[in-house]
Amino acid sequence: MPSFSRLIRFLAKDGRTYYGDAILPHGTVDIAKATQAKIIRGEIFGKHDVTDQVADIRKLLAPLAFEDVKTVRCLGLNYEQHAKESNMPIPKFPILFYKPITSLSGPTDPIPIHPLAQLGTGLDYECELVAIIGRTCSNVPESSALSHVLGYAIGNDVSHRDWQLKHGGGQWSLGKGFDAWAPYGPGIVSTSLIPDPQNLEISTRLNGKTVQRSNTRDMIFGVAKTIAFLSQGTTLLPGDLIFTGTPQGVGMGRNPQVWLRDGDVVEVALEGVGVCRNRVEFTKGETKSKL
Amino acid sequence: MPSFSRLIRFLAKDGRTYYGDAILPHGTVDIAKATQAKIIRGEIFGKHDVTDQVADIRKLLAPLAFEDVKTVRCLGLNYEQHAKESNMPIPKFPILFYKPITSLSGPTDPIPIHPLAQLGTGLDYECELVAIIGRTCSNVPESSALSHVLGYAIGNDVSHRDWQLKHGGGQWSLGKGFDAWAPYGPGIVSTSLIPDPQNLEISTRLNGKTVQRSNTRDMIFGVAKTIAFLSQGTTLLPGDLIFTGTPQGVGMGRNPQVWLRDGDVVEVALEGVGVCRNRVEFTKGETKSKL
Repeated sequence: MPSFSRLIRFLAKDGRTYYGDAILPHGTVDIAKATQAKIIRGEIFGKHDVTDQVADIRKLLAPLAFEDVKTVRCLGLNYEQHAKESNMPIPKFPILFYKPITSLSGPTDPIPIHPLAQLGTGLDYECELVAIIGRTCSNVPESSALSHVLGYAIGNDVSHRDWQLKHGGGQWSLGKGFDAWAPYGPGIVSTSLIPDPQNLEISTRLNGKTVQRSNTRDMIFGVAKTIAFLSQGTTLLPGDLIFTGTPQGVGMGRNPQVWLRDGDVVEVALEGVGVCRNRVEFTKGETKSKL
Repeated sequence: MPSFSRLIRFLAKDGRTYYGDAILPHGTVDIAKATQAKIIRGEIFGKHDVTDQVADIRKLLAPLAFEDVKTVRCLGLNYEQHAKESNMPIPKFPILFYKPITSLSGPTDPIPIHPLAQLGTGLDYECELVAIIGRTCSNVPESSALSHVLGYAIGNDVSHRDWQLKHGGGQWSLGKGFDAWAPYGPGIVSTSLIPDPQNLEISTRLNGKTVQRSNTRDMIFGVAKTIAFLSQGTTLLPGDLIFTGTPQGVGMGRNPQVWLRDGDVVEVALEGVGVCRNRVEFTKGETKSKL
């Protein structure tokens, strides 16, 4: 089991990148507000030590190094109220899709919008509890599923509804997989601090205004059920991420609908974990694809 | 550019695992028939040497080591005749989905069928040309797309139609992502030997009987177009695999329909590459999911 409480990865003021255990300033549990951390040495999914060496944080990075993540699984329609706002039936089984590891980015990184994703309409946010697998497992019973979890983070499953729903042949992957469309962080809070992931406030603020607010208890398939189901005949690996779906209040479900624009700031937050704050940045470049 | 012609990974008679350049026996271009290879030293996607040291092959493995693969992309409905047999319109854009890296396996490995995938009906085969990305790239024009390809293999996108189409909320991932449901190989043939991937015979034999036979020229989006499209705003990495879709003749499209059973042997073949031959093996174990 991990020896850290709040795992972060960060660029330090000494110019180097470290894994660390965040030191929270007095009066907050938002990891994004940490300015210092104890440096962790060793393998995050193996032998490691939380040292007494304290480093100053210049910038928080995606909590896991690129090479430490294997697969990013995501659930769709996993909150009751969100299924209702989407006019979809309550799923009988978890609805699974994937994002590529290149979609991962850090808690303060910009969300780049390639010209392909500027076509049509439907650029949207989705706050999601992210469960990080800590140990190799398969065919896990629900009763012991959480023992395979390293911890939890908050993530944004950035989505382009036109590419997701209209032009991807019904498969959601295309409209959700662009580079850096899965910012997460600000750190990974150990299961020792969050023994029950099904009673956490989760929310999104768009340019300072709250647009999603729910509690993970509204999940249709909780983290334990999800891991039990997904691990049937499928090996989950240390460093696999599971984005567990978003609650109601996405831009697509609002009246009138709200789409992200260049320069918008999206903050996704999870109780006991903190805030991921990312700015939408339309990029230049060419696309030959036309809708 | 790679210095090898036919990249394999293999367990040698000396008990060790190597990357190698397959030595083809006289009169065949099927890599699966190779009994010897020149050992490759170094990084497959970096500096490496094809040595003069010859090793005897005991067993061919998945052509890339687990840690050398990042992301497995797949296309759906990418052959005209297959789209027709599926009663689906010809897609306007490539239809993208993903398989996890844990679904990869080697050219002679069994295809394990977990009890969850024994529920319902619809266990099916899909022969597919697999393009392996050799260099980091994004926003690639079609005209130079093939220069980023390391080579080609043949793969089987094993699918369970009930989980894919009926119980996955419309997302195909669940019914295609089980452990070892993407055997590929028998090796990766360099683009120097296959400069044009759009004129290759591709086929499947089920228990010795040909059930799929087509040519990659029937692809709707050829390899170059696919890479150009998918790399828009998305970075492709060395070791990314792209399963480029299957031609007509899948079990679901036959009359009467044909589903894989325990003990069946499926051989998928690609001209100039060879044969992947995998046996279907129903496994035991528990599942609490019920259809």
